[in-house]
Amino acid sequence: MATSVTEAKRGYTASKEQLLNRLRRIEGQVRGIERMVEEDRYCIDVVTQISAAQAALDKIALGLLDDHVRHCLAGMGDAPTPAEPGAQADELMSAVGRLVNR
Amino acid sequence: MATSVTEAKRGYTASKEQLLNRLRRIEGQVRGIERMVEEDRYCIDVVTQISAAQAALDKIALGLLDDHVRHCLAGMGDAPTPAEPGAQADELMSAVGRLVNR
Amino acid sequence: MATSVTEAKRGYTASKEQLLNRLRRIEGQVRGIERMVEEDRYCIDVVTQISAAQAALDKIALGLLDDHVRHCLAGMGDAPTPAEPGAQADELMSAVGRLVNR
Amino acid sequence: MATSVTEAKRGYTASKEQLLNRLRRIEGQVRGIERMVEEDRYCIDVVTQISAAQAALDKIALGLLDDHVRHCLAGMGDAPTPAEPGAQADELMSAVGRLVNR
Repeated sequence: MATSVTEAKRGYTASKEQLLNRLRRIEGQVRGIERMVEEDRYCIDVVTQISAAQAALDKIALGLLDDHVRHCLAGMGDAPTPAEPGAQADELMSAVGRLVNR
Repeated sequence: MATSVTEAKRGYTASKEQLLNRLRRIEGQVRGIERMVEEDRYCIDVVTQISAAQAALDKIALGLLDDHVRHCLAGMGDAPTPAEPGAQADELMSAVGRLVNR
Repeated sequence: MATSVTEAKRGYTASKEQLLNRLRRIEGQVRGIERMVEEDRYCIDVVTQISAAQAALDKIALGLLDDHVRHCLAGMGDAPTPAEPGAQADELMSAVGRLVNR
Repeated sequence: MATSVTEAKRGYTASKEQLLNRLRRIEGQVRGIERMVEEDRYCIDVVTQISAAQAALDKIALGLLDDHVRHCLAGMGDAPTPAEPGAQADELMSAVGRLVNR
């Protein structure tokens, strides 16, 4: 499904359109939350919508890390410059740590 | 700081403009993430930006819950229809649960 | 179900035995994790057990906060010294914040 | 620092003693929480201790995953039976997912 070498290297090409659609949906969710605040909607309902946006962002982040890990483990790192395994691990675990201890 | 009874009831009036500014900034962050995906940027960098948006959303959600809890404990519930303490607690703890176990 | 005033004040009396049983089970889980490490078990399996202990601890923490919120909203604070609503809210939201951004 | 092939394979040998010490400390924290419940201590204080135990468990889980990722990326998988990269990635990301969406 990758259409170019450059894209293939990035690790999320196969579902790039899906990914963009999901991100646009989240952008819409955030705009919906702004509207709720403008209209003084009940704050528990606002928080519920925020949790939904968070869950959608988590899913995207985990999906991106999944692709990345697959590329790295297959020995086809997708970093802009070739990284050695130790640096790859540092980078990956920092990203995981930020997701866990957000 | 509240300018009307309706707004005062919602529990986040005092900082409504701040809240909207922060939400618009998050909307911009999500659009920035879309652009990164479009430009096939390195996925670890995309995940880092997602974590930043998540942290900003967490902060807003916790701020909203904080205002809400203050209103409820002061006996000035901000629910659209007056709620009895048990129902208020259910609602609040469901919201907290969704944030913790997103 | 409370058997004394002191216990009733604490906010989790009704299920104190349940709570202790659950905590003892978690203590056992942690000991099981130690054993796994001693036996050089596969680290993904160790992490899976850690996640299970975390989920059990989350459940207990949310249950305690739930009881606490119910007491506070019913105007029967369970703090060791009577707290005014603002201080109660500070304390509650700090606890929630620590759970969310652990 | 590894003293045997078996231990080296597990991916957390270098700090096995440290790891056990940290787990024993967490076991002690959980026992302390039980004691707090037995003594009807204020529930916000109990929740604070639970958060501390959670943070300590998170740190251990992230440390184990870190070692694991390093082994996998160095092409020295530490699975009990040799795994191909796709299966390794599935397993790793399931573990990360459980930590993020606990």
